[in-house]
Amino acid sequence: MKKLNIGLFGFGVVGEGIYQVLSEKSQLNTNIKKIVIKHPDKQRNAPTELFSTEAEDILNDPEIDIVVELIDDADAAFEIVKTALNKGKSVVSANKKMIAEHHLELIELQRKNQVSFLYEAAVCGSVPILRNLEEYYDNDLLNYIQGIVNGSTNYILTKMKSENESYEKALKSAKENGFAESNPALDVEGTDAANKLSIIILHAFGRLVSPNDILKKGITALKNEDFIYAAEKGLIIKLIAGCALDESGNLTPIVVPTFIEKSKTLGLVNNEYNGVLIGSALADEQFLYGKGAGRYPTSSAVLSDISALRYDYKYELRKGIKNGFHGEYFVEKKFYVGFKPGQKLNKEIFQNIEESYQSKEYEYVTGTIRLSDLKNSGWLENESVSVISF
Amino acid sequence: MKKLNIGLFGFGVVGEGIYQVLSEKSQLNTNIKKIVIKHPDKQRNAPTELFSTEAEDILNDPEIDIVVELIDDADAAFEIVKTALNKGKSVVSANKKMIAEHHLELIELQRKNQVSFLYEAAVCGSVPILRNLEEYYDNDLLNYIQGIVNGSTNYILTKMKSENESYEKALKSAKENGFAESNPALDVEGTDAANKLSIIILHAFGRLVSPNDILKKGITALKNEDFIYAAEKGLIIKLIAGCALDESGNLTPIVVPTFIEKSKTLGLVNNEYNGVLIGSALADEQFLYGKGAGRYPTSSAVLSDISALRYDYKYELRKGIKNGFHGEYFVEKKFYVGFKPGQKLNKEIFQNIEESYQSKEYEYVTGTIRLSDLKNSGWLENESVSVISF
Repeated sequence: MKKLNIGLFGFGVVGEGIYQVLSEKSQLNTNIKKIVIKHPDKQRNAPTELFSTEAEDILNDPEIDIVVELIDDADAAFEIVKTALNKGKSVVSANKKMIAEHHLELIELQRKNQVSFLYEAAVCGSVPILRNLEEYYDNDLLNYIQGIVNGSTNYILTKMKSENESYEKALKSAKENGFAESNPALDVEGTDAANKLSIIILHAFGRLVSPNDILKKGITALKNEDFIYAAEKGLIIKLIAGCALDESGNLTPIVVPTFIEKSKTLGLVNNEYNGVLIGSALADEQFLYGKGAGRYPTSSAVLSDISALRYDYKYELRKGIKNGFHGEYFVEKKFYVGFKPGQKLNKEIFQNIEESYQSKEYEYVTGTIRLSDLKNSGWLENESVSVISF
Repeated sequence: MKKLNIGLFGFGVVGEGIYQVLSEKSQLNTNIKKIVIKHPDKQRNAPTELFSTEAEDILNDPEIDIVVELIDDADAAFEIVKTALNKGKSVVSANKKMIAEHHLELIELQRKNQVSFLYEAAVCGSVPILRNLEEYYDNDLLNYIQGIVNGSTNYILTKMKSENESYEKALKSAKENGFAESNPALDVEGTDAANKLSIIILHAFGRLVSPNDILKKGITALKNEDFIYAAEKGLIIKLIAGCALDESGNLTPIVVPTFIEKSKTLGLVNNEYNGVLIGSALADEQFLYGKGAGRYPTSSAVLSDISALRYDYKYELRKGIKNGFHGEYFVEKKFYVGFKPGQKLNKEIFQNIEESYQSKEYEYVTGTIRLSDLKNSGWLENESVSVISF
């Protein structure tokens, strides 16, 4: 088995976790040769001589086989990963934003340079969703993927439901527990989930979907009244990322708060956990579940990728890389739309209205809406309008 | 990509499923060249010229690359698989009994002949547990595996709980729905679960455990009173197969009815579904879930194995194949033991007794018991004694 020299970018929560584990596990036959960081003055739990602030100390070192990229900044990460691949180094990354935004280019670079680019940790932390989509579901016809893929928002929603906390308090608690970024906008606005969904879709269906084309609503517009409605109906609210593939080959990628029955599989996924349902023609519904955020779960996924590089594992993308989705939606779904009285919403986009409720404090309407109409309604971007899917 | 010629043994529920799918899916680039069956007079949904009753028509055909073995008889299956491997053919099998009983020999034959022997369908139907243990959990330190691995018993227990059916009626319903074998003894007595657990343990921990050495109790001794006890405490009864690995390297493989809280992950697994929890040092607890029995779920797993043979996939068993378990148990656990009044049970094996209940109709005791004592108690083999783990 190859002895691998690793160059590590970033020494945050996950980077330090990786360092710790690799130092303790000699059987992996790996060696962290250099760690590039931004702030040389911070106290670090590793020997000083390992650290550098110069990316070149890793990228220009021919003895380093693997670059593990774990920095926050997606643009800087892209430059590092691009250079590393072009220098014939394999790369492990957890940067979903960078990957979603440059997926095709990164895959081409991997092919051209005949190296591996692995990123299991970028999607659902420790849950091996990409590896399973690549290896195990490469022949069975997949019909849909549906999952809770963002640990931070799920943690917040769980707190809001079970401990009746306010959004602000739940977000604070998520940050304190290391499940939310210092700038949580990407999480709570659904962008992170859309990035992950975009990555999942390529591995599940062989289709390239830009996260910008995904119909998306985060959790910031959810109001207390929405949770009361859910509780009355015995439902819980989860931020669900999903994509169905119909018989004509149309995709329906969507990230939106969704009412889930408590007893349903996704209702089981609480706190920082992630879970993904995979619906297929033969195997019916399968479910993968595990911790989606935090030091060790993410480290676990990064380590699995490093370990796979020992035997030159690659994502083969056997389903191909087809284009063909540019934000066109053909189906309708049932939604709950909540808003403050006095807001003039164009309710005509409801194909039919099932319930309509007004009080002095709140109004809501439930009924089916064409996704194409919802996308153009302005409600997704409007922070005072709750949109929840059934 | 290689074009693969397949020889199929068995044309039962799964065999016919495989034939159907491969006939429809030309993209898999496979061809079923011959199907060997036992009863030539049965009506079959495939062209007559495909069928033969002579194993040699497959085994001696040099054009056949892959043998797919889907027959009931474990001894006959072993002869077929052995011959096929020795003739340089790769083999896909779903025969857990055969594999558990001859695991080491089959792996050696695979190595010696430089072919692949895959058997994902043998464990948990469509759930890719072996592939994940092999590929994804090859570096993270696993602490335990715990799962519902037998669809038939889980279907029966679900019916008994949710529809308050008698054991006999639930078993009949399981048979009618194709989730139980015509001879269900292997299922309901826990032998099937022990076989699967033995296979899982090799891939999870790199340890060879004979199913005969596994502490085991099926569901046949469960009585109505046990379900009443469970309901009173808000618990459900599941047949759980599990194995923990402690820091000294001791394994604790066990198959036994177990009380589960409804809200816990394994409480989600109902009817013919299977689910496996994987506990590891880094990723914490992960969960894989899907259909464990029936035509298409099993076909799905067989197809994934066939598909993997297109790129010469093999179980590498990177964790090794160590011996070292011969039925020695070092831990104690809490159990519920139920029995009819008048049965003289040696209650002295309870380390401590927490509850003790007597009525004219039934008695039960709860408390901790050393597993080594339980194994020698005679209670596991005694059909009139319920033993349920907490």
